[in-house]
Parts: sequence; C-alpha cells; structure tokens
Amino acid sequence: MTFISYDDFDSFDHIYRINLINSCSGYKSANLIGTKSAEGQENVAVFSSVTHIGSNPPLLGFFCRPTTVTRHTYDNIKATKFYTINHIHSEILADAHHTSAKYNKTISEFDKTKLISEYKKDFHAPFVKGCPLQLAMEFVEEYDIKANDTILVIGEIKGLYLEDHLLKADGFIDLAEGKTAAINGLDGYAVPTSNARFGYQRPKNES
Amino acid sequence: MTFISYDDFDSFDHIYRINLINSCSGYKSANLIGTKSAEGQENVAVFSSVTHIGSNPPLLGFFCRPTTVTRHTYDNIKATKFYTINHIHSEILADAHHTSAKYNKTISEFDKTKLISEYKKDFHAPFVKGCPLQLAMEFVEEYDIKANDTILVIGEIKGLYLEDHLLKADGFIDLAEGKTAAINGLDGYAVPTSNARFGYQRPKNES
Repeated sequence: MTFISYDDFDSFDHIYRINLINSCSGYKSANLIGTKSAEGQENVAVFSSVTHIGSNPPLLGFFCRPTTVTRHTYDNIKATKFYTINHIHSEILADAHHTSAKYNKTISEFDKTKLISEYKKDFHAPFVKGCPLQLAMEFVEEYDIKANDTILVIGEIKGLYLEDHLLKADGFIDLAEGKTAAINGLDGYAVPTSNARFGYQRPKNES
Repeated sequence: MTFISYDDFDSFDHIYRINLINSCSGYKSANLIGTKSAEGQENVAVFSSVTHIGSNPPLLGFFCRPTTVTRHTYDNIKATKFYTINHIHSEILADAHHTSAKYNKTISEFDKTKLISEYKKDFHAPFVKGCPLQLAMEFVEEYDIKANDTILVIGEIKGLYLEDHLLKADGFIDLAEGKTAAINGLDGYAVPTSNARFGYQRPKNES
C-alpha cells in the first residue's frame, strides 16, 4: 500500500491536494440544492456533503464555505428559511456538476443548464424537475465550525416526493432503482446499479 | 410521484420511519471506525455519516448519538484522541454491517466477525486489515447538535494508506477500483463499478 503522511499533504500542489482529500471520506451524496432569494432570483448548486443527522425529528445537514459558490445557496436559505434537496441521477450528471461553476449572483444555473425548476404546492424554493427524490426543507439551525471556518447548516424535512416504484414495503427507498448518483472526490460521479440489504443486526452468542 | 408529508412521518411505525428517512440524503459513505480504549479494549463500528469538511486542514466529521452502539467509539475517541477510518469494500459487507449489533463494551467486534485489526507504525488505534483506504485520525473538536442531541465529531487526517493502483496522477482516488461501498438507508450496501469525471467547471458565456 501507499502511505501518505500529514506532512506530505503540504508538499502537494493545490489541485492534487483537494482531489486527494476530497476522495478520503468514501462516496458522498450527490444532491442539488434549490433556493430562491427574497427578490425571486433562483439558484441551484451541487452539494456533496448532505448527511443524515436523525430520523425523529427528520434532520439533514450540509457544510458550506461562505467564500465559495455555495454562498448564494447559504444567503438564500438564511433570508427565506426554505430550500430543496434533489437527488442527482444518471440523466443529469453533466448539468448537475456544471452548477459548481462560479456564476454571478444575478444568473440562475437553471438558465445555464438543461435543469428545469419546478414549483410544488406553495413551497417557496424550486425543486429540480425529474429528480427521483425531492425534499422540501426548512432551516433549523447552524453551527460555525471553528476548525476551518465552514458552516454546518441543519434543516428539517417538511415533505418528500419520490418516484412511486422506489418506495419499498418497509419504508426503504431503493436509490439504485432511481439511478441516483454518488460522488467520488470533487468531480467523479458513480451510479450504482444494485444493492444488497443485510437487515437489523443482533449480537451473536456472547457466551 | 408519491408525496409524503411531514405529518405522515408521525403516522409510520418506527422501522418504516427510520428506513425512509435514512434513505433521503442519498448515498452515504460506508466506513468502519476503529478505536482502542485506554485500557486496551478494541472496538470497530460501521458509520454512514463520515463527511468531508475541508482539505486544508484535512478534516472529516461524523455524527454519533451517544445513547446507541456508537457510544463505545465516542468514548474511546474522547479518552485517547485517536481513531481510524477504513473504507468498507465488497469483500466485507456482511461483517462490516454486523458491527452495528449492540455488543457489550467488553466485547470486540473484531472477535465476533472476520474483520482483522491491524496496527501500523506507533498509531494507537487499530486499522481494519484489507480495506482499500485506511485513515489515521486525530480528534480536533466536537459540537453538540441541539436539534436532536447528537454530536458532530471532527478529526484531522494524520496519514492515509491506500492500495497503490487507486491513486491517479492528479490526486484523485478511484473508489470504484477499490470496490468501496456506499450505504443506502440503514442496511443497504451498493458497490459502484465505474465512475465518470467531469472536471473543474467554469461559467459559460455570461453575456
């Protein structure tokens, strides 16, 4: 095996370093977060850090660095409280990834890609049409991460839309059937084709 | 599409609810966290919430609920400061998942599965032998998440071991080549077989 030490990290150029460290956590969730400013400007951006925090209450978190492209998403959430999380799937990989480009705040990524915004009921933020799973989210709280000046944004799931066939009898959502993607590093997208379930685990004989 | 409202969540039985909400964030990272208590008791447990927080410094976080099986991992990290993160791969899915069973603190999951602990250099915590990528981690800080009484544990990557062939010329680590798994919900494991890279994105003509 190759060993890379902490000191080695500092010897790498910037691109090499971010490619490497971004791959270390394993596969990451692949989501588009949709927002709309108080003035009506839409925004949609790819996030690889959306993470399950708890089921009761139903909470998801994500990390953003306010100095980057994710700033528009963060500002809109803080101003309006609402956002959507939409699973990136096999048909939109290139357009979804393109939302990582640094556009001016007055430009909607919906206008620069084939992604289509979609409004449901009276929810403020736009969903991404065609995504196999779409979540309506409301901001709950945030934490300033001292170690690197990022922000953990926590929101509650207010409702979810999903393709009928993905939902199984026990509540499991089959992401492979939805062709949902997973992110590898900064720019790699993998679409698993199947999964195996192992069920709830009880201890083997402890004697 | 099926719509499930916030109020619906409360109408579901416990298992249905946790299966459903745990699938909502998309694919999750699949890792084994290895620890050893100050008294020398080893522990290894599956975590699906390991998340990239930043590359400089190189930080990863994970969430744990101190009332569950993850308590042993948390206690050992707090007592010793060190832990390992090991990518779950196709050959160990069943054993990796079995570490979610609630064993007594005096029992090592290494003794109840075919997972083998491995020590490297003078690092305190055990790695999981055979994992395609293994990280030596040091605790940095933690945050109490008020919304649901979980804890965000943040650590710094002190070193990484990986199979030689996974590391590409630009620092990208090909997780598909390592047969690294992704987690779907509570008990589903998918192993992607390939990925596509889309590169760094610049804005299209803004005029």
